[in-house]
Amino acid sequence: MLVVGELINSSRKAITAAIETQDVKYIQNIAKEQLEAGANYIDVNAGIFVGKEAEYLTWLVKVVQEAVDAPCCIDSPDPKCVEAALKVHKGVAMVNSISLEKERYDALMPVIAGTNLKVVALCMGDEGMPETTEARLKIADKLINDLTKNNVPLDNIYVDALVQPIATSDSFGIEFLDAIQAVTTNYPGVHTICGLSNISYGLPNRKFMNQMFAVMGIAKGLDGLIINPLDKAMMASIITAETLAGRDNFCCNYLEAFRRDAFVW
Amino acid sequence: MLVVGELINSSRKAITAAIETQDVKYIQNIAKEQLEAGANYIDVNAGIFVGKEAEYLTWLVKVVQEAVDAPCCIDSPDPKCVEAALKVHKGVAMVNSISLEKERYDALMPVIAGTNLKVVALCMGDEGMPETTEARLKIADKLINDLTKNNVPLDNIYVDALVQPIATSDSFGIEFLDAIQAVTTNYPGVHTICGLSNISYGLPNRKFMNQMFAVMGIAKGLDGLIINPLDKAMMASIITAETLAGRDNFCCNYLEAFRRDAFVW
Repeated sequence: MLVVGELINSSRKAITAAIETQDVKYIQNIAKEQLEAGANYIDVNAGIFVGKEAEYLTWLVKVVQEAVDAPCCIDSPDPKCVEAALKVHKGVAMVNSISLEKERYDALMPVIAGTNLKVVALCMGDEGMPETTEARLKIADKLINDLTKNNVPLDNIYVDALVQPIATSDSFGIEFLDAIQAVTTNYPGVHTICGLSNISYGLPNRKFMNQMFAVMGIAKGLDGLIINPLDKAMMASIITAETLAGRDNFCCNYLEAFRRDAFVW
Repeated sequence: MLVVGELINSSRKAITAAIETQDVKYIQNIAKEQLEAGANYIDVNAGIFVGKEAEYLTWLVKVVQEAVDAPCCIDSPDPKCVEAALKVHKGVAMVNSISLEKERYDALMPVIAGTNLKVVALCMGDEGMPETTEARLKIADKLINDLTKNNVPLDNIYVDALVQPIATSDSFGIEFLDAIQAVTTNYPGVHTICGLSNISYGLPNRKFMNQMFAVMGIAKGLDGLIINPLDKAMMASIITAETLAGRDNFCCNYLEAFRRDAFVW
């Protein structure tokens, strides 16, 4: 499981404040905590700062990588901001995300083409958000084909099938889960990734629901998650589900997590 | 989700004692508690009493049905005991289980044929326990065909794909889960059911692992579980997973469970 630590996101008030006051220590501490808790990539997002996003995103990348020896997930819908952040990034970043939205696609594909970057391929087009498994697969198919034509290896592609709120439609959970399974089955070597919080939008017990949805995703083949790695119940669920999905030789990760008392339930 | 309450089982010491002392109240209280907690069937098992199983199983059925207006799941590998218990059972029981083990199959099929009984079709043959998805499907296919030829409606068949310990082989979880999905897809109308505790045999944090496995099963189509319905964390997981699997119109069950504070996490 590839874990992207989601906490350094300007949609969170504490992060907005830390960016505004250029609080290096606060940002660096959160980066360190997430890495120690099991994150493979540190997400950086400054999307709330219209007009200053590129400047702040670049600052976040520098500050995070001064503190931790880990790659960032450059999280912005604006290709110019992504490009600016990549310029200061050390090592191989993840770009979150390319989509079929024409403006984003046209500007970002040349940046990604022929590189070794990890790429989140978001199932979204100019027609809006896909609701069915089929609509997701149509977008995923085009993105995967286009990326490979542009010399991005399959192993660097992470399809985000776009989680939508179950409170909006009963079928939004299973349509997403079936899309994960179809991508995993139809495109061997391609990865899948998602954030979870949209699924529980508008409902109570959100953390628990997100946790259950992650576990269901793993049953269907999901192998990437953008989450809060400091959430011990979530991490315990993920480790256990991966063991049950046959991704943990001799249950070693499960037993190791048990020994260091990483479980919360 | 069809829930079979598993607590009245002679492999549990307190139940052995209650059967031996013919403690009607103790058995009836457990039956009532399970029904109130959401069980649809009350499992009765007296398998530990060699030579007296039929007598005690019949007693359990009578005692349980004096206390609750619910059907029992007659849990015995011995067709004679099943037959004896069915004679005193009121309403439509579930039989747990028929299998491809010749002796059991030959004696039980005539009892089930042409009835309206619910039947657990256990993926087990005289060759031993199946390990792969394929081996499970081969047995399931024969059992489903034979049962329908014997006038058992598809809707009354619950395939138990036989959970085996993940500590024994890394693939035992996913082979089971894929079998659930294949049965659900290949035989529309047929149900699936299982007990969970075998999956975590030999490992720590068993309750939590069983809970995660139930959630993964639901993602793959599982619609029956033999569990302890008094386990509030398990029930919360099941209700949430069913909502996410598209089986809960307008999230009504989820919200109702939240309102009566049924959640534990």
